[in-house]
Amino acid sequence: MTVTADQVRQLREHTGAGMMECKKALTEAAGDFEKAVDVLRKAGIAKAGKREGRAASEGLVQAYVHPGSRVGVLIEVNCETDFVARTPEFAELARNLAMQVAAAGAEVVRREEVPVERVERERAIFVAQLEGQKKPPAIVEKIVAGKLDKFFAEICLLEQPYIRDDKLTVGELVSAAAAKTGENIVVRRFARFRLGQE
Amino acid sequence: MTVTADQVRQLREHTGAGMMECKKALTEAAGDFEKAVDVLRKAGIAKAGKREGRAASEGLVQAYVHPGSRVGVLIEVNCETDFVARTPEFAELARNLAMQVAAAGAEVVRREEVPVERVERERAIFVAQLEGQKKPPAIVEKIVAGKLDKFFAEICLLEQPYIRDDKLTVGELVSAAAAKTGENIVVRRFARFRLGQE
Repeated sequence: MTVTADQVRQLREHTGAGMMECKKALTEAAGDFEKAVDVLRKAGIAKAGKREGRAASEGLVQAYVHPGSRVGVLIEVNCETDFVARTPEFAELARNLAMQVAAAGAEVVRREEVPVERVERERAIFVAQLEGQKKPPAIVEKIVAGKLDKFFAEICLLEQPYIRDDKLTVGELVSAAAAKTGENIVVRRFARFRLGQE
Repeated sequence: MTVTADQVRQLREHTGAGMMECKKALTEAAGDFEKAVDVLRKAGIAKAGKREGRAASEGLVQAYVHPGSRVGVLIEVNCETDFVARTPEFAELARNLAMQVAAAGAEVVRREEVPVERVERERAIFVAQLEGQKKPPAIVEKIVAGKLDKFFAEICLLEQPYIRDDKLTVGELVSAAAAKTGENIVVRRFARFRLGQE
């Protein structure tokens, strides 16, 4: 079991413990980060703490609450530099994205975040809807793929039509902003609460 | 398999399908609600839809973004009537709760929401810290219970000291508001985003 310098550095940053202590703890924990933290805490070296690590990226956390306060959205949009994050254009993009989520009710940011079981459930329903229509399998597959695309376009933020200009998808809106700033822009996550609902 | 009138009503509200269709679908699905929805959808009776049910309770969804837009909070606070939800006092309570979460960084609303494994992990660490001190087991148990209480007071919103008056816990603040309005007030959920962090 070799402990890398990188692991030691991370553990030091996370716990504030000394280098040799971190190395020893990592060796004892066979390289498992969480276990090494516990080793240090058990030895009374690291504090429990809710120490927050350094932010990994720049951007904004933005909120939008719909008039009436029954629907609210919190969103995090990342970019590469603080310089871009502080521009009015970036703030406007984040605000528009939050309003999009509030109005159009996406459930996830991107397609990859939809659980496989849910996609399979939808697919089974679409296939069953076409049964008895005696269509060739290749056509059925094509229709089902089209219906799945529509399903994704409803629940995935980046695939939704943009509420302020439905010739664009939200993903295209984000790409346009990225091209304009010259930075990679990523919608990292959002939360949407509707009063009285899960 | 008997299908209850209540199940039929729920399925009707959820899908917009007719009573007999819902009853048949529920029977076919052996009473499984989600399966019955699928039966109706497969038959082309129910729409896919992201139909949102009626709100179960009153209250407010409130947001707070800390100056600098690196920390943001979305919170839902429930009460019993729209009348109370619309009072300035209730809005102020919700705003103060959102600021509390932003500033003091709770992870859950209440103790019951902390996963059992996490509590056990903390307990094991506290017990290990006391080893070798030759304290009687009853004393160890007492000290550990005290440390666990402190742990809960850090991560559970309702047990935290209120940032604007640390003689109160947040739970006591909410109870005082409930007593004043004569309504049950419940902090239902919150989300807290810090830029670049999970």
